[in-house]
Amino acid sequence: MAFNKRVKIKELLEKDYADQDITIMGWVRTKRSNKNVSFIALNDGSSIKNFQVVADPNLINEETLKKASTGACLKVSGKIVTSQGSGQQIELNASKIEILGEADPEKYPLQPKKHSLEFLREIAHLRVRTNTFGAVFRVRHALAFAVHKYFNDKGFFYIHTPIITASDAEGAGETFKVTTFDLKNPPLTPDGKIDYKADFFERETNLTVSGQLEGELAAMGLADIYTFGPTFRAENSNTTRHLAEFWMIEPEMAFYDAEDNQDLAEDFLKYIISYALENCKDDIEFLDKRAEEEESTKKADKRSEMGLLGRLQFVVENEFQRLTYTEAIDVLKNSNYNKKKKFQYLIENWGVDLQSEHERYLVEKHFKKPVILTDYPKEIKAFYMRQNDDGKTVAAMDILFPGIGEIVGGSQREERLDLLTKRMEEMNIPTEEMWWYLDTRRFGSTPHAGFGLGFERLVLFVTGMGNIRDVIAFPRTPGHAEF
Amino acid sequence: MAFNKRVKIKELLEKDYADQDITIMGWVRTKRSNKNVSFIALNDGSSIKNFQVVADPNLINEETLKKASTGACLKVSGKIVTSQGSGQQIELNASKIEILGEADPEKYPLQPKKHSLEFLREIAHLRVRTNTFGAVFRVRHALAFAVHKYFNDKGFFYIHTPIITASDAEGAGETFKVTTFDLKNPPLTPDGKIDYKADFFERETNLTVSGQLEGELAAMGLADIYTFGPTFRAENSNTTRHLAEFWMIEPEMAFYDAEDNQDLAEDFLKYIISYALENCKDDIEFLDKRAEEEESTKKADKRSEMGLLGRLQFVVENEFQRLTYTEAIDVLKNSNYNKKKKFQYLIENWGVDLQSEHERYLVEKHFKKPVILTDYPKEIKAFYMRQNDDGKTVAAMDILFPGIGEIVGGSQREERLDLLTKRMEEMNIPTEEMWWYLDTRRFGSTPHAGFGLGFERLVLFVTGMGNIRDVIAFPRTPGHAEF
Repeated sequence: MAFNKRVKIKELLEKDYADQDITIMGWVRTKRSNKNVSFIALNDGSSIKNFQVVADPNLINEETLKKASTGACLKVSGKIVTSQGSGQQIELNASKIEILGEADPEKYPLQPKKHSLEFLREIAHLRVRTNTFGAVFRVRHALAFAVHKYFNDKGFFYIHTPIITASDAEGAGETFKVTTFDLKNPPLTPDGKIDYKADFFERETNLTVSGQLEGELAAMGLADIYTFGPTFRAENSNTTRHLAEFWMIEPEMAFYDAEDNQDLAEDFLKYIISYALENCKDDIEFLDKRAEEEESTKKADKRSEMGLLGRLQFVVENEFQRLTYTEAIDVLKNSNYNKKKKFQYLIENWGVDLQSEHERYLVEKHFKKPVILTDYPKEIKAFYMRQNDDGKTVAAMDILFPGIGEIVGGSQREERLDLLTKRMEEMNIPTEEMWWYLDTRRFGSTPHAGFGLGFERLVLFVTGMGNIRDVIAFPRTPGHAEF
Repeated sequence: MAFNKRVKIKELLEKDYADQDITIMGWVRTKRSNKNVSFIALNDGSSIKNFQVVADPNLINEETLKKASTGACLKVSGKIVTSQGSGQQIELNASKIEILGEADPEKYPLQPKKHSLEFLREIAHLRVRTNTFGAVFRVRHALAFAVHKYFNDKGFFYIHTPIITASDAEGAGETFKVTTFDLKNPPLTPDGKIDYKADFFERETNLTVSGQLEGELAAMGLADIYTFGPTFRAENSNTTRHLAEFWMIEPEMAFYDAEDNQDLAEDFLKYIISYALENCKDDIEFLDKRAEEEESTKKADKRSEMGLLGRLQFVVENEFQRLTYTEAIDVLKNSNYNKKKKFQYLIENWGVDLQSEHERYLVEKHFKKPVILTDYPKEIKAFYMRQNDDGKTVAAMDILFPGIGEIVGGSQREERLDLLTKRMEEMNIPTEEMWWYLDTRRFGSTPHAGFGLGFERLVLFVTGMGNIRDVIAFPRTPGHAEF
């Protein structure tokens, strides 16, 4: 006999169920009782909003009402009626309450009070039952779905690039090793080295840092592809911006040049943020208020000028300002911030990498728009970026957002076999190991481009949360692999 | 200046571009020339269908035409006209052809002839440029999108469960170790053991075998969730059905019992297969013919009774037959196959695990419908499955399909803390390490259920390919981590 004949709270709030007998199920957030009546706020995860259950002690026995404490799971049947109280338009007059699972008030860690995010991180298996994390994970879902919908609607194909890989070609950082060896006694070669020929893949393997190179292979046949998968960095960074395991979105397009790439990235970012604004209105309003409260605890000079909703609209409504790295250096060099030494790192010479403070200055103070910076010095960018005719710069782009700086990095790729091979040799990238990558330039090469978006950075931006550990269900960071 | 002003071939074939001047780009599949004209079949990955370019040697110079060999990448501009030849309705009269990238016929491995799948696996970076693999990856994309669309439309939330994990709680098999240790000199504790406290995560970690347990945590707050991510098995299985790295879809629903779970799984499978049939018509027709040709090379008694399209319609159009394991054992025991010893493994006693031959017999010979088998003996199923009142069976379900046997495995989960703890102890699952899993039964527990679908198994079924290495872009198997 099927059990799940419930109506979701989201649907109750959106459609007309007046005077109907229905069943809802969910977890108790709060309960207020007096002699004549109990009010139970029930949440089922479908919405930030709780639904008010009204329980008459003449109909519902005392023992049941006692067990319906914060955190307990209930099945409630009754009639939808117009609410007598303020705070909600309709409520459920309970004719029957069944306790599906209790939550001993002496032991249940999530009581109806403000818990710190640090504490909630320690009970990440339960934090999804709070308002803040319910909202974060619903927004995260909406953004993920918007990514798939955007690319599908445009005729892109989703490619699953490998997680276990033998190449750290990009040199993007420290990698995690993957092995089936007994670490105590790994087999050795006669000259005393680890004998990787005896490992599972018969070679040294690690966790991928990017799906881009494999994405390029697929784009050289399917033309428009994207990846959306986990990537890994074994960097010992204990910051609010770094995870050891995070999800990346990497579209790669044959027949796109740098400008096509910029057009796509701007359109894409506006689409997915607009999608979240439209589909997660209640959640984002809640998170906006939450962020505002957080801001109000900071010193005046540390507060953001824009609120969360303001930042989201800033991105959606403005045409992104496009300029070259060289132009940006001029702007920064001549800025008051540079002259008055307000920057921690002063801009003196062409060629330096920009810091977050410089990126935010361009976006928030100078242009007051999201910014696409292009044509960076080749020395500070990866080997696969297309070399410009000036011999000094490459066709890179970084997209800069308010509050966080870089959100997207991309480039037109070097499609010319001779120039690519030469650059790889200059940068000590092993061209022989990468024969398959070079094959795409050997056979049927074409201008192509792509970019990468760190998904958690995006969720951080759209939810206004302050720590990247709070926008993924079970964060992996140095010393942390719980759950 | 934007480069990508092309029209995709899929769009050219679907919309009316008669007499318009347009540009297409793509890779040459074949070229036929005579004195007066060259016909170039161009493919851009958007469709299984090539587009015919007609090149007049009076307009296009000889050198260009020579370079437009199989595999070369072209940009072609001209007018869309009604085709003079058979095989296509419209074609492009080229006014200009630009060679974007050559493909030396002496060196390019993909010549216009039949290549073996084994050979193509060795050049997986190029195989996406063939008809078969183009079709496979387009169908794979459509199935992945259908998964997201189905769950999103039903109000499920996509959860990214961790890839690196400290628990192999399910005991689902051999895992890959993840470490940043120098394998030559891992740090040791004073008593000579590996000192995992000194590793990146300060504990022993491996690659996940399933996101289910973490999915359950999320379902206990968001109610309806699903995962879609990579999972790993370090089993040394060199078969056509096993990958070391594969993608799994695992929905998990609070307030669902076993029957709700079966209803959802049946509806879900029918939806995503129907979606592929509707959205990948040309590709599936091509793959159907391809499978038919493959079958015709087999001995008569090894051939499938149904073709690819037949199998897909078989699933979409039939109500799945539901019966218990105990009933299935009766059917199998009394079958002619058992009596005449046509089964390799004869069915004698209740309690044995079913083999693929038994599953296929039930689906293809006996019921002639997809089958949902339920209520398996607890000894052959995992610890977390809900214990039935008979004390012998658990509320498991396997869904069986023609040709491949099991495609989905799931269960109602044991929500009762005492019964779950007891079963874990019986099966030597460490209850202390799994405090977080047991917490969901301690606080606000509720009936819930879920299932798992191996995505590559699904793609194998829908594409009719014979080897699972041919339905993922860059397969990982023992000894293979190329690209």
